[in-house]
Amino acid sequence: MAMRITLIGSGLVGSSWGVVFSRAGFEATLYDPDPAALEAALELARRAASELAASGLLDGQSAESVLGRLHASSDLARALEGAGYIQESAPERLEVKQALYRDIAALAPRNAVIGSSTSGLPASSFTADIDGRERCLVVHPINPPHLVPLVELVPAPWTDLAAIDRAERLMREVGQVPIRLRREIPGFVVNRLQGALLSEAFRLVEDGVCSAADLDAAVADGLGLRWAFMGPFETIDLNAPGGIADYCRRFGAMYHGFASEAQPRAWSDALVGRVEAERRQTTGETALGTRKAWRDRVLARLVAARRSILRDER
Amino acid sequence: MAMRITLIGSGLVGSSWGVVFSRAGFEATLYDPDPAALEAALELARRAASELAASGLLDGQSAESVLGRLHASSDLARALEGAGYIQESAPERLEVKQALYRDIAALAPRNAVIGSSTSGLPASSFTADIDGRERCLVVHPINPPHLVPLVELVPAPWTDLAAIDRAERLMREVGQVPIRLRREIPGFVVNRLQGALLSEAFRLVEDGVCSAADLDAAVADGLGLRWAFMGPFETIDLNAPGGIADYCRRFGAMYHGFASEAQPRAWSDALVGRVEAERRQTTGETALGTRKAWRDRVLARLVAARRSILRDER
Repeated sequence: MAMRITLIGSGLVGSSWGVVFSRAGFEATLYDPDPAALEAALELARRAASELAASGLLDGQSAESVLGRLHASSDLARALEGAGYIQESAPERLEVKQALYRDIAALAPRNAVIGSSTSGLPASSFTADIDGRERCLVVHPINPPHLVPLVELVPAPWTDLAAIDRAERLMREVGQVPIRLRREIPGFVVNRLQGALLSEAFRLVEDGVCSAADLDAAVADGLGLRWAFMGPFETIDLNAPGGIADYCRRFGAMYHGFASEAQPRAWSDALVGRVEAERRQTTGETALGTRKAWRDRVLARLVAARRSILRDER
Repeated sequence: MAMRITLIGSGLVGSSWGVVFSRAGFEATLYDPDPAALEAALELARRAASELAASGLLDGQSAESVLGRLHASSDLARALEGAGYIQESAPERLEVKQALYRDIAALAPRNAVIGSSTSGLPASSFTADIDGRERCLVVHPINPPHLVPLVELVPAPWTDLAAIDRAERLMREVGQVPIRLRREIPGFVVNRLQGALLSEAFRLVEDGVCSAADLDAAVADGLGLRWAFMGPFETIDLNAPGGIADYCRRFGAMYHGFASEAQPRAWSDALVGRVEAERRQTTGETALGTRKAWRDRVLARLVAARRSILRDER
């Protein structure tokens, strides 16, 4: 029998994880203390599964058969019964997670690996005092995980190598792309990279070099097209006749010069207000919801197209 | 009769520009003093046009009809005859461009706008002394422009607003996405943004946080999927309930913290060597050419898929 999965916390992230696991053939149980939250999560999962089916991202399964493997419970002990892997996506508040992990540790099977979806709290901050803390780590998705495959695995200092290995294998098995961080750092890798790009973006707009809309276009119609299938290292490795070392010989000093000029700056309220005002001209406040739905549709279709292209061109 | 276009310099960039203009219905002439270089450029253009046709990116035209509008000349005066717009893609050496611009200024029609493909030299450094310098600016593509639409327009201090406007309109007319820089800065916008991401990427690998392959995956299987159709500002604007200002209230201090820790570092030879060694395990030196061809095929198909998705979901 396939391993059972328990999903703790049933917001957007938890329900998306539910789809990831049930899509891959696992029986998965969503837990939330609030039955209304569970009902909402199942509805989100239904919508996500239909979107995936429409985009050809269910490998020929029907949305119904996938959702048939997704269960819900507001009883923590029952939700954890027989679980082989637990994905926690509770609110991002330290005291909430600390209390929750004590409960999980007391109720979960001793050999279950426990991954947290936290985007900001290191596993060491909420697993230090629990029983079996060596099976806990951060398993941080990019939202929503049923569309974006990347997952960051971030161990606490006491996480067992075997637990990381099991989480990594499971993530590959369900079609995600796990990366391994060797230690806890604030922001992990993904938000560090996003922060570096955002800080430079805010700097260029603050210095009056270009508009916020033009800055967005520089990525969306330019840099981002390669980054959707190659990382920054592979991009430059293929961008000079002799590979990445050749590229760095040609341009390394130039890039170091840019970085040296760039003293870190806080994003001031005035600056953020300017960018916000410009954004609201393109997408008014009342249109934000419609635009988010647009983003989700485009993302689903682009992910489907990318998958089929990368399969063909392997 | 449609405006005639002259393309000065016929390497990869010049030949790709040739396809951009001829695809859009313009008669375009490639100039290079070396007839062998011209022959090679026409062959590159033929290959590019066939790829575009195969990916459905010629709007129903045949590759032959597009290429029928692309001409070649090794006589500068003849190539410039009747030109309404000139795109210069000569080697990135200051003295080459300075000499070339003196020749172009003497031979080109007085009202032709002259855009340079330079990725690093400001227009002020090679147009200061020429006749009609107010019609010169940088029109910097991301390579190859026949696949990646973004173009940076960077005026010299003396560039006429009307010349920038004309270049912008022409770029839109041929299907590119022009952005306007308000003044010259080193690296323009695109390479500043790329540099910020690369510097953080090198830092994370140097500090032993993750492997170069995992760093690449963080972008290619994660951050890059949204960045292929939304810029960094729109991404965060849609990532908090109250939009970008709400997002910055929640996370601005965190990102400022990351930036404050990040003292600029040169990319040392040892570090670059480590990343290169890891890259060569995935793509050996002799496989770089094959991998570049893979990149071009994936890019063409992804651009085609993205275009059709964005049209449908407009």
